[in-house]
Amino acid sequence: MARVPTGIPGFDELIEGGFIENDVILLTGGPGAGKSTFGSQYLYSGIMHHNEPGVYITFEETPARIMRNMWRYGWDMERLVKEDKLRIIRTDPIAYGRYIKKSMEADNKGDHENATLETVLKQIYANIREINAKRLFIDSLTSLKISPDPVDVRHIILEFIKNIESFDCTTIITSEIHKDPDNFSVEEYLAEGVICLKVFRIDGERIRSLEILKMRGVKHDEVLRPYLITDNGIIVYPYESVIGKEADVFSFQKSSILGEE
Amino acid sequence: MARVPTGIPGFDELIEGGFIENDVILLTGGPGAGKSTFGSQYLYSGIMHHNEPGVYITFEETPARIMRNMWRYGWDMERLVKEDKLRIIRTDPIAYGRYIKKSMEADNKGDHENATLETVLKQIYANIREINAKRLFIDSLTSLKISPDPVDVRHIILEFIKNIESFDCTTIITSEIHKDPDNFSVEEYLAEGVICLKVFRIDGERIRSLEILKMRGVKHDEVLRPYLITDNGIIVYPYESVIGKEADVFSFQKSSILGEE
Amino acid sequence: MARVPTGIPGFDELIEGGFIENDVILLTGGPGAGKSTFGSQYLYSGIMHHNEPGVYITFEETPARIMRNMWRYGWDMERLVKEDKLRIIRTDPIAYGRYIKKSMEADNKGDHENATLETVLKQIYANIREINAKRLFIDSLTSLKISPDPVDVRHIILEFIKNIESFDCTTIITSEIHKDPDNFSVEEYLAEGVICLKVFRIDGERIRSLEILKMRGVKHDEVLRPYLITDNGIIVYPYESVIGKEADVFSFQKSSILGEE
Amino acid sequence: MARVPTGIPGFDELIEGGFIENDVILLTGGPGAGKSTFGSQYLYSGIMHHNEPGVYITFEETPARIMRNMWRYGWDMERLVKEDKLRIIRTDPIAYGRYIKKSMEADNKGDHENATLETVLKQIYANIREINAKRLFIDSLTSLKISPDPVDVRHIILEFIKNIESFDCTTIITSEIHKDPDNFSVEEYLAEGVICLKVFRIDGERIRSLEILKMRGVKHDEVLRPYLITDNGIIVYPYESVIGKEADVFSFQKSSILGEE
Amino acid sequence: MARVPTGIPGFDELIEGGFIENDVILLTGGPGAGKSTFGSQYLYSGIMHHNEPGVYITFEETPARIMRNMWRYGWDMERLVKEDKLRIIRTDPIAYGRYIKKSMEADNKGDHENATLETVLKQIYANIREINAKRLFIDSLTSLKISPDPVDVRHIILEFIKNIESFDCTTIITSEIHKDPDNFSVEEYLAEGVICLKVFRIDGERIRSLEILKMRGVKHDEVLRPYLITDNGIIVYPYESVIGKEADVFSFQKSSILGEE
Amino acid sequence: MARVPTGIPGFDELIEGGFIENDVILLTGGPGAGKSTFGSQYLYSGIMHHNEPGVYITFEETPARIMRNMWRYGWDMERLVKEDKLRIIRTDPIAYGRYIKKSMEADNKGDHENATLETVLKQIYANIREINAKRLFIDSLTSLKISPDPVDVRHIILEFIKNIESFDCTTIITSEIHKDPDNFSVEEYLAEGVICLKVFRIDGERIRSLEILKMRGVKHDEVLRPYLITDNGIIVYPYESVIGKEADVFSFQKSSILGEE
Repeated sequence: MARVPTGIPGFDELIEGGFIENDVILLTGGPGAGKSTFGSQYLYSGIMHHNEPGVYITFEETPARIMRNMWRYGWDMERLVKEDKLRIIRTDPIAYGRYIKKSMEADNKGDHENATLETVLKQIYANIREINAKRLFIDSLTSLKISPDPVDVRHIILEFIKNIESFDCTTIITSEIHKDPDNFSVEEYLAEGVICLKVFRIDGERIRSLEILKMRGVKHDEVLRPYLITDNGIIVYPYESVIGKEADVFSFQKSSILGEE
Repeated sequence: MARVPTGIPGFDELIEGGFIENDVILLTGGPGAGKSTFGSQYLYSGIMHHNEPGVYITFEETPARIMRNMWRYGWDMERLVKEDKLRIIRTDPIAYGRYIKKSMEADNKGDHENATLETVLKQIYANIREINAKRLFIDSLTSLKISPDPVDVRHIILEFIKNIESFDCTTIITSEIHKDPDNFSVEEYLAEGVICLKVFRIDGERIRSLEILKMRGVKHDEVLRPYLITDNGIIVYPYESVIGKEADVFSFQKSSILGEE
Repeated sequence: MARVPTGIPGFDELIEGGFIENDVILLTGGPGAGKSTFGSQYLYSGIMHHNEPGVYITFEETPARIMRNMWRYGWDMERLVKEDKLRIIRTDPIAYGRYIKKSMEADNKGDHENATLETVLKQIYANIREINAKRLFIDSLTSLKISPDPVDVRHIILEFIKNIESFDCTTIITSEIHKDPDNFSVEEYLAEGVICLKVFRIDGERIRSLEILKMRGVKHDEVLRPYLITDNGIIVYPYESVIGKEADVFSFQKSSILGEE
Repeated sequence: MARVPTGIPGFDELIEGGFIENDVILLTGGPGAGKSTFGSQYLYSGIMHHNEPGVYITFEETPARIMRNMWRYGWDMERLVKEDKLRIIRTDPIAYGRYIKKSMEADNKGDHENATLETVLKQIYANIREINAKRLFIDSLTSLKISPDPVDVRHIILEFIKNIESFDCTTIITSEIHKDPDNFSVEEYLAEGVICLKVFRIDGERIRSLEILKMRGVKHDEVLRPYLITDNGIIVYPYESVIGKEADVFSFQKSSILGEE
Repeated sequence: MARVPTGIPGFDELIEGGFIENDVILLTGGPGAGKSTFGSQYLYSGIMHHNEPGVYITFEETPARIMRNMWRYGWDMERLVKEDKLRIIRTDPIAYGRYIKKSMEADNKGDHENATLETVLKQIYANIREINAKRLFIDSLTSLKISPDPVDVRHIILEFIKNIESFDCTTIITSEIHKDPDNFSVEEYLAEGVICLKVFRIDGERIRSLEILKMRGVKHDEVLRPYLITDNGIIVYPYESVIGKEADVFSFQKSSILGEE
Repeated sequence: MARVPTGIPGFDELIEGGFIENDVILLTGGPGAGKSTFGSQYLYSGIMHHNEPGVYITFEETPARIMRNMWRYGWDMERLVKEDKLRIIRTDPIAYGRYIKKSMEADNKGDHENATLETVLKQIYANIREINAKRLFIDSLTSLKISPDPVDVRHIILEFIKNIESFDCTTIITSEIHKDPDNFSVEEYLAEGVICLKVFRIDGERIRSLEILKMRGVKHDEVLRPYLITDNGIIVYPYESVIGKEADVFSFQKSSILGEE
């Protein structure tokens, strides 16, 4: 099985050298955890070092803001877009779903969620084909949850992931953390791999750590590893682990959470 | 009562030598706990060592990915499929239910959930009969919860389990953990046996443990036992128990959960 | 007031010698707590030692499985069924309710829940009369909660219990624990007596304990008492109490619950 | 303002000698706390020692069971009923509400909740007038919550309490504890007085305590006081308080609650 | 900006001498905290010491009960009502809303919540004008939450507060505490000032404390201050603070809450 | 990228000198945290020190109250309004949405939420253009959540933020904290930057602290920093951090929260 190096220094050591080709990997984390940076670095590195074109699907941010924000790391995404090695496509499944729903109601014809899903998938696939992309980054799955019914959401997520799996791209999809941490969300069960970004606060400063919750078919690392967001992007420390400070973390976390007013 | 050895080294010691023939056993655990590996090992071992054909029903993963992922353990499931000793069947009750619902709404005829359930059960039964399967693995029950009404869900789960019990197969069904751990889910009450896979994190590393919550009609082990996922599949340590590290587990767990950002 | 000995060694000491004749007692506990064993032992002992016929109403398990599972304790329930001293009747109020609901919708006639309840009660009463049963065991009340509306559920449970009280049988009804333990369920308020089975885990092993939450009109024990599930059924230790290990229980419990992944 | 002695030894010392005449007092507590005993003792003592007839409204228990259960304390309620000094009336607002709702739906006429409330209030008032009752006990308010809409429930409870206040009786109404203890239920805000029965478990035994949450217009006790359920009914210890054992209570409570399986 | 002294001894020291004229201040607390006493004292003192007529709007209690309950403090509200310096007006927005809703449904005309709100506001305003009131007390805002939709509730509360602000009265509105304490209710965001009454239990006795959560435009105290309910009403201790006993409070609170049965 | 100094002493040191021009920054905090003061200071300082006109959009407070409340800090906002350097505009999206919804229902024409959003955005944009504003403050986003459906809310928030981003203003939007602190709200994911105001209570006094959860494209501070509300507005201490008192905070917080009655 071919492996796809991620371009995140230190990360590939945790997963036998890279993702399995064409897998769909979930990346979870809160606001400020660095999910967009992780995905941009993955695409940028693919183009620069492996000559693999990439597609960035954004359901929320505008392409202009994404390119601007990545300047902080010295990545010239605009140039790559101009050379058509990178596509940054913004689409909004919720707005789309609402539009389709309304036209359907007029005709009384049915399943707007499937129609929305199909349109979004076609748009992603067209962009992949046009530049022959090998890497795909989608930010974020949460915007695809266009139904209030959890059974529908499960169906949408499952269909979306299974379709993306057939696109001949190695894909990272981000997901917001919305539920309580004892419960796993449906996408954590359905994806081939799950990477969790977790941010603690210790003595008033943040400690960033990364954990591979699962990576099917791969003998993967299972330890909580620290990572940093540097001027050159994300770096993972694959031989260090986040231990020994748990008690402090606990008392501080607890207080800061309860202390919110 | 005939016993069915599971093929998981160390596990049968906990349940007087194996499952009771034709029982339906529930296997619960989070993402990455090894539920699919447990089930594949059970089927693979049945075919290789007891010449008992098996059926793998997947409501989520594609058969191709399952076969690929099991290569990690050196299990050549593809060959077994070709020899028709193993069937890996993907079906999607949610999509199915939605389709049936839509056609029914047109005709205004009623109970799409029962129709969905019946179709899924027929498909499973046909595959069992065709290869004379003795072992059945179903992944996962959660995809059968195709109604938002808990009363309907209870009915579906009960009907499904009671039907599966009549198929002359010894069956493992997986279930996701979605509720808070003080509450048991309906399937834990309705199944003949329940095996729980639990994963702790201690000092940054994961400890895997297994517990038999119940096994009706069997004098079963009641201790928390460690297990490993090795290059040859799952191994249970039936004479060791996970104790003495509870305080550490507690403080760490707590902090890492609260620490999520 | 005549007393009905339960046949559970050690239990009658806690309630002045037995249940009050014709009372309806609730038995709560999680999966694996031994609720079915408790009820079977109560019926079996009634037939064997007091020549009182019994009826076992099961809303979930099949009679065949129940008889099989009780073999573990050496109880030959099949013979008692053949001699018509024991009836094991399976009925499914949810399926029944759904069927009635559908036919009613056709005729637009109304209250399917009452119709379901009435049918189930008639069936129970007929079986009691036919063998002149003195003991009744119903497993479980949860399957009677056939409405999503808590006001309807309260009505159903209240009507069910009040009707059962008029059947001239001394009755045990089981109930699953579905809510958080600070809240009592409606049946705990409505039944004449409530027996709680609780299972702790200490140092990786399970400790089983029993508590009488209430027993109206009876001067009952109020201490947490240990019980065992032996090869001969349940034994209660009425002069021992589960104390002194609380701190351990606490830390372990907490960790193992949070540790679930 | 005239005072009404409760007949609970030790209790009147906490509230300047008794309830204020014609007040409506709420009595809260879980199953087994002794709410029915408290109310029966209040009525029984009123008849025996103050020659004040009483009405017992039961929305759940049958009058026969209530009389039987009170035998434990040596109270011959049956005789008082025969002498028409005591009325024990069972009515079921939920069943009633369902019946009214159905007939109304036929005529499409509207507000079944108000109709139900009015009927129940008329029935209570008629019984009060017929025996010239001075004391009223209603068990329990929870059965009056016949609507799933909290705004409707608030209206029903407020209307019910305000009507009862105008009946020239001094009234105790019981209420189940269904919500988490940080939140007060609507009746705790709306009643003139609130008495809470709380049951702890310490070292495996139960400790019963009573607290007066409020008593408008009365300089009332604010300490947690122990009470016992003896062979002669409830006794309160107005000069003792439940302190000094909190830590034990805490660790045990916590563990036993979490330990439930 | 003119200041309005509250008449609560010790309280005005915390807010630069009194409320800002014409502000709307929220007063939160559980049952028994003394909210009605606080408001009555504010009105009574306004009439007696500043010759400012006052209006007491009660959505729950009857005026007769309010006057009776305040006798405990020696306040003769009845006389003030007779002299028309005080108005105590009972109105029931929920009942009103239900009535309006029903007539509207007949005519199919729309927004009963706005109609209810308008009627209640007109009634309040008329009473203010008739006696030229300067002080207004409204008990409680919770009864205005006549819609199950939180968006509607937000609108109602916002409209109500903004209208009251324009009535040229300095107003206290009470609010029940219904949500968990990590979440603030909408009125806490919308009011100009928020005073919280909190009651702890320490060693079985209650400790009452008061905190000013906010007071816009005012340099206000931010410490938790003790208060007492004496025979002469509420007294605040502006130079003491509730500290140093936290650990005890915690362990006791926790246990007594969990200990509820 | 041009930077916009905030005018909050000490704050700009945390974000490389100021906001990125035209960014939309979220400011979260409970009642009394100082959100309105933060926003007013930002606008006031922009006009006074950088000659940049500003627009204050209030969905809740009246302009008159805002101006009055800011007098406490010596800021003469009324003069700035007269000179047309500052606009304070009150609009109420909920009331607006309700009005639009009603007219639409009459015509049966559809999406009132989009119509409401569009109207509010046009009004904001018109005011910006008329005074050529460079700074915008919106208080608060919560009032825009005019739908009970979270999918709709996500759409509204996303559309609102993306539109505001295109207005050539540097914008602060406030948000109430309504959910439990483990869950981030949708706006925290969608905004370019998030500033959290947190208020602890230590020994009865409040400690105010500020944290930058994220600031896309900016190398920002990640430590919890103290701030004060002085007679001259907010001051941040960028070189101090809130540490070392966590245990105290915890025990106190916990007790005071649980202690609420």
